[in-house]
Amino acid sequence: MTDDRAAGAGDGPASEPRLLRTTRMEAFSDGVFAIAITLLVLDIVTPPDAGDDLLGAVLALWPSYLAYVVSFGTIGAIWLAHNAITEYLRGTTVAVLRWNLLLLLVVAFLPFPTRLLGEHADTSAAERVAVTSYGATLLAAALLLAALWRSVRRAGLVRPDAGDREVVSLTRRLTPGLAGYLVLIGVGLIWPLAAVVGYLLVAVYLGLPLRRRSSGPFRTAR
Amino acid sequence: MTDDRAAGAGDGPASEPRLLRTTRMEAFSDGVFAIAITLLVLDIVTPPDAGDDLLGAVLALWPSYLAYVVSFGTIGAIWLAHNAITEYLRGTTVAVLRWNLLLLLVVAFLPFPTRLLGEHADTSAAERVAVTSYGATLLAAALLLAALWRSVRRAGLVRPDAGDREVVSLTRRLTPGLAGYLVLIGVGLIWPLAAVVGYLLVAVYLGLPLRRRSSGPFRTAR
Amino acid sequence: MTDDRAAGAGDGPASEPRLLRTTRMEAFSDGVFAIAITLLVLDIVTPPDAGDDLLGAVLALWPSYLAYVVSFGTIGAIWLAHNAITEYLRGTTVAVLRWNLLLLLVVAFLPFPTRLLGEHADTSAAERVAVTSYGATLLAAALLLAALWRSVRRAGLVRPDAGDREVVSLTRRLTPGLAGYLVLIGVGLIWPLAAVVGYLLVAVYLGLPLRRRSSGPFRTAR
Amino acid sequence: MTDDRAAGAGDGPASEPRLLRTTRMEAFSDGVFAIAITLLVLDIVTPPDAGDDLLGAVLALWPSYLAYVVSFGTIGAIWLAHNAITEYLRGTTVAVLRWNLLLLLVVAFLPFPTRLLGEHADTSAAERVAVTSYGATLLAAALLLAALWRSVRRAGLVRPDAGDREVVSLTRRLTPGLAGYLVLIGVGLIWPLAAVVGYLLVAVYLGLPLRRRSSGPFRTAR
Repeated sequence: MTDDRAAGAGDGPASEPRLLRTTRMEAFSDGVFAIAITLLVLDIVTPPDAGDDLLGAVLALWPSYLAYVVSFGTIGAIWLAHNAITEYLRGTTVAVLRWNLLLLLVVAFLPFPTRLLGEHADTSAAERVAVTSYGATLLAAALLLAALWRSVRRAGLVRPDAGDREVVSLTRRLTPGLAGYLVLIGVGLIWPLAAVVGYLLVAVYLGLPLRRRSSGPFRTAR
Repeated sequence: MTDDRAAGAGDGPASEPRLLRTTRMEAFSDGVFAIAITLLVLDIVTPPDAGDDLLGAVLALWPSYLAYVVSFGTIGAIWLAHNAITEYLRGTTVAVLRWNLLLLLVVAFLPFPTRLLGEHADTSAAERVAVTSYGATLLAAALLLAALWRSVRRAGLVRPDAGDREVVSLTRRLTPGLAGYLVLIGVGLIWPLAAVVGYLLVAVYLGLPLRRRSSGPFRTAR
Repeated sequence: MTDDRAAGAGDGPASEPRLLRTTRMEAFSDGVFAIAITLLVLDIVTPPDAGDDLLGAVLALWPSYLAYVVSFGTIGAIWLAHNAITEYLRGTTVAVLRWNLLLLLVVAFLPFPTRLLGEHADTSAAERVAVTSYGATLLAAALLLAALWRSVRRAGLVRPDAGDREVVSLTRRLTPGLAGYLVLIGVGLIWPLAAVVGYLLVAVYLGLPLRRRSSGPFRTAR
Repeated sequence: MTDDRAAGAGDGPASEPRLLRTTRMEAFSDGVFAIAITLLVLDIVTPPDAGDDLLGAVLALWPSYLAYVVSFGTIGAIWLAHNAITEYLRGTTVAVLRWNLLLLLVVAFLPFPTRLLGEHADTSAAERVAVTSYGATLLAAALLLAALWRSVRRAGLVRPDAGDREVVSLTRRLTPGLAGYLVLIGVGLIWPLAAVVGYLLVAVYLGLPLRRRSSGPFRTAR
């Protein structure tokens, strides 16, 4: 155990400050991701008088199911990207931990706009507010994910055995999410439901494995 | 730590792409399982005026207790199977992580039909809807668990020291759950309570250790 | 990582079945303990009209604070004992995992009687029901903790370097909790508040380090 | 794995009692921190009739957002300090685990005063009670964090390769929080909002990396 902890230090030049282990950063982040993703179900609630026509009440909850799937997919995609980042880390620093905390602040906030989305599919004015809040939160998460990755690269924490192409590939992958979210926030002002479907598609895209030719950890095995 | 991370790669042929560590897949899944299983208790609530006859109110909650035990048992059984799968993994891929996320999406959803089950034991029409929603969710979880195991085997991620018989044994174990759930969904349309008891029995069966003769990790020590 | 997983097997005689790693049993249990202990705060709620006299409303919640501290202390003490058990494990089996799941089922249920305790301190009849439900849950948890430890010892999973005296010591430590809970359930039928204070004392006692002379992991360092 | 567990023992003199692994202390703490930090969002709720003017309702929730950010920042800063402490540990004892449980008891309680803060920004009398409860909880957390660090040092659990200056540096860092909280509790009695902003500044300060010259794990890499 003791050796483990000093592992980061041994990898770098002797003059480099000692790095922190990544275990707690990973465990704490996994905890927040897991809770944020699981709390989403608490907002799927049938009205108190649902007993008379439970089937109708359950079916009428479709906006909540859609919000659940979109948010689950998005948090899942952010988790996949976060996983990819920590996979490259040979240690961490307090500066990286703080960017990580900022990212988690936004991820943990996502259940709130998700609830708005599930509850306000009825009137179009309210739906527009809900969808825009939702998109702004996703945009903030995507920005902070990119900032986290940048802080990791700037601090020189990427493991030496990670190929340059992999690093570039992950960097490129994290960018289109940003553009996509900006466009979809605009779309949501006019056609809210289309934006929600768009957020789902972005999540599915972000979760896709990188293209087969790359040799990084993101490539799927045959 | 650095060595650990490359461990998966070292096991396979040199041409194989680098595998991801399984630690975060395990930690994140454990988090979601733990939260889904613990949130179930939030739905056991006495009515606001329970103070006058608290004993009666506590006893009247029996459908909620039954729903709690069945869901806890089912999530526990899925966790045991998930544990068995990761025990065989020598690394993971993004494709496997995505199947895993789909499984967790269904596991994290289970508290919703569980709540329906606890709240609608009074009228038989509503109970039928609740029991069928519940069964459909369990069936989806069982299907995704089988899909996860299949994606693991197809990607060649099973550790070489795992005996063929063990792998076949686990595969066989995961199948009858599917058939059981299909039958019980049918039973639930006619006799809802019987289906709920059936779901509990399937969970207990899935959690049973494999038969003594096998030499896999599922065999209990003497 | 691969080596790690086979570690349990290497320790025992060649004829012994392969043991499962304890990492996921520990991570999953830590998750359930952490959530059960943290959910307790959700039941501390001021009434909607508390704004007029918030200080009075906050002070009037003392039964909820007491319930919070007692339940936190009890779950903490169970966690300490669970920690001591896993510290001795050289691997695990499905049978042990199932006892562990049963223990977690009761731990995750504890927030329900805790809420009863916090809400029904007003009328003595209701308080008696709440305190008895609470005591029965604690008794069940203590019984299952002892059953878990027994299943570990019977399966021969205690690490060979654990001294016999330590094992006896832990066994003895787990027993008085049972007797204490039985007595306190009786006390609670007559004098509910005394039983609640008693549960807190049992938790504090269970969390105390073993006496200085012992050489086990429970002894505090100088 | 087996070797790992005995690691702590090997580091110290032969006469020293065996130490416990820190893995479960870390995992359990990470779980409680992650849940406490994520539960905060559950208290951000729009009123039931928000649909008519959702934008107004969402904007009117600013005290809840402020409370969310301050509490997230504070729990994040406590987590960073906790992370720094465990980074120095070569093992743990039951006494340290108990201080840790006391710290977690306060951290898990924080969502309650956070909710008070978010809900009672309207009348100044209620706001004063909310802000003072909040400050008292933060003060208790800071005191227990310092007590945890002291118990670690007194038990001689700091890893031998940790420089003396680093240890002094961490000790010094943990102190001004205490003074800051005492002052802010006084400020809150007169000007509640200023105290809340002050709590945010303390959190940001606590999360700052130590000054560049130090060579401890808290220093950021270039």
